[in-house]
Formats: sequence, structure tokens, C-alpha cells
Amino acid sequence: QMGWVVRPCRGEDCGGGSPPSQELAEFEKLPDQVQINDQVLREDGFANDPFYRCLVAEVPPEYRSRDGHTIVGYGLYFFTYSTWKGRNIYMEDLYIMPEFRGKGIGKKLMSKIAEIGVENRCIEMKFVVLDWNQAAIDFYQSQGAVDLTAAEGWHFFHFKGDALVRLAQGQ
Amino acid sequence: QMGWVVRPCRGEDCGGGSPPSQELAEFEKLPDQVQINDQVLREDGFANDPFYRCLVAEVPPEYRSRDGHTIVGYGLYFFTYSTWKGRNIYMEDLYIMPEFRGKGIGKKLMSKIAEIGVENRCIEMKFVVLDWNQAAIDFYQSQGAVDLTAAEGWHFFHFKGDALVRLAQGQ
Repeated sequence: QMGWVVRPCRGEDCGGGSPPSQELAEFEKLPDQVQINDQVLREDGFANDPFYRCLVAEVPPEYRSRDGHTIVGYGLYFFTYSTWKGRNIYMEDLYIMPEFRGKGIGKKLMSKIAEIGVENRCIEMKFVVLDWNQAAIDFYQSQGAVDLTAAEGWHFFHFKGDALVRLAQGQ
Repeated sequence: QMGWVVRPCRGEDCGGGSPPSQELAEFEKLPDQVQINDQVLREDGFANDPFYRCLVAEVPPEYRSRDGHTIVGYGLYFFTYSTWKGRNIYMEDLYIMPEFRGKGIGKKLMSKIAEIGVENRCIEMKFVVLDWNQAAIDFYQSQGAVDLTAAEGWHFFHFKGDALVRLAQGQ
């Protein structure tokens, strides 16, 4: 049986070819949304007061991926807040390379993020899923997740680019 | 003309009766979701490494609300992250007491949060809105916001309570 471990991401893990976040974007059919590189990821995640935290799943060198990677999945998270319920943990990304799926790696990454949340007194773990990704929705719901967009009507909005700049200028 | 200012929230602003977050929950028809109190808000927002940041809108004592409040609105936010796009600012709450609406206070709070985002190199400002709250949706869209649930299919999910604990225990 192939061994693998889940461990906190280190700065030096960002680098060496296409990061898994690019693969995730391609899988989600939004590849042109990737606009940053490894250097920015390192600066934002591994300085004082980091903007995110990350766990990676790593296999031994003899089980490396066809592309030569030993990091075969990751889960990226951060703490958020609700004035109604207090501390939340937000799972921004959860990705396992296709050739490493079906081994429980995704479940373990998600479980570990939940554990970190509970240890930090978070009472919710939030995330977003694309509505066409039925395999992911089935998996999350089988673990007890609730679709708040369907249940309560929450829609996700953003300002970006020029609209954000105009808003910031009070226009 | 009634004066008002927007300023960063201070710990001592949390206290003295029903906080605006309770009013927001009642407005959004989810009043039973309020599960924390002023003390928790103070601990989580004003210690080292706070879980959130907040701006308040304040009127002079002579213009206080019918209930006696001088803080008549607030905008709560924090920084989040996208591995595709980098730093985000997330507007968790934006609330103005009904008797103080129509004066530009909400626009100013939202604009100031956007400004803080741009200053910190965020390229997106995210938030969620209830699908029945057409007045809010119209306001946000008039300022250039995009509904990502409608445009791309993102649904908002969570684990909470027993489901979160089971997940954290790896069950």
C-alpha cells in the first residue's frame, strides 16, 4: 500500500513547476483565473501574519506522480468570523491529483482542517463548490455538509478590477 | 444636515445593549442564528491576531437613535485568500439602522472597506447576500458587484455542530 502523509505546507513547497492550484483551476474550468505565481504565494503565506494556511499531502519519492511531484494534494484554509456565531474556519481549496484519488487523502485533508477549526473554537467550517461538480457535492454531503445557497438563499458576490477601484475611490 | 463619521471599531464599542449584529440577524430573518455575546466579540476582535476588523458609523449624541445608540451602522471585514488571485478582502456584515438609511452611510462604509482592501493589494472584495434581499442586490449591483453564484455557479456550503465534530474526529 502506498504511503502518504498530511503535513503543514512550508514555503519551499511553493515552487518547482506548475503548482496544484493551477491544476485545480483547470479542473474547475476556470484556468484563466490564475493570476499569481509561486513567489507571491510564498510572500503571502509564510511571512508574519500570513494571509492563509495550508496542508499538503505528500508521497515518498518512489510513488511520485507521472509529472514528478511528491506533493499530490493540498487543502488551503484560513480563519474567518461571523458576528452571529463567532470563529469560522474557511476551506478555500481542496485538491487531490486525479491519479491519487480514492485513497482517502481528500477526506484526511478535510478532516485535519476541521480538527484545526475545532481546536480553535470554530463552530463552522465554510467553503464553496461549483454547482456542476456533482461528485464533490455528493462527497461533501455524504460527510454531513449543508448547501447554504440552496437551504437559505445565500449568493456569493464580488467586486473586482475597475469596479473595486471605483468603489475604493468613493465614486 | 446630520453629521456622522466612519471610524475603526474599538473594543469598548462592543457592549451596552443589543449590538447591531442582532438587528442585522432579525432583518435577515435569521434571528436564532445569533449565538455569541459582546464579550466574545471583544475577545475575538481586539486581542493580538484578531479574527476580524470592523468599521462603525457614529452620530453625535444629539442625533442618537430612538433606542439611544450613537453607533448606527457597521461594516465587518477580514482578509482572505485565493491561490488563483491572491489577497482578498471579505465584507462579512454591512448594516445600517433603518432610521439612518438613505444618507450614504452604507456606501461610505463599503467604500472604506474597499479602500483598505486596495491599500493591502487585494484584487477582489467578496461578500454574500440573501437572494430575497432585492434592495441590497440592486444596491450592490449598481456599484458594479457581480453575483458569482449566478454567473459561475458557486454554492456556499458549511459543516457545523455534530457534523463538524465528526469530521474533525475523522469519522
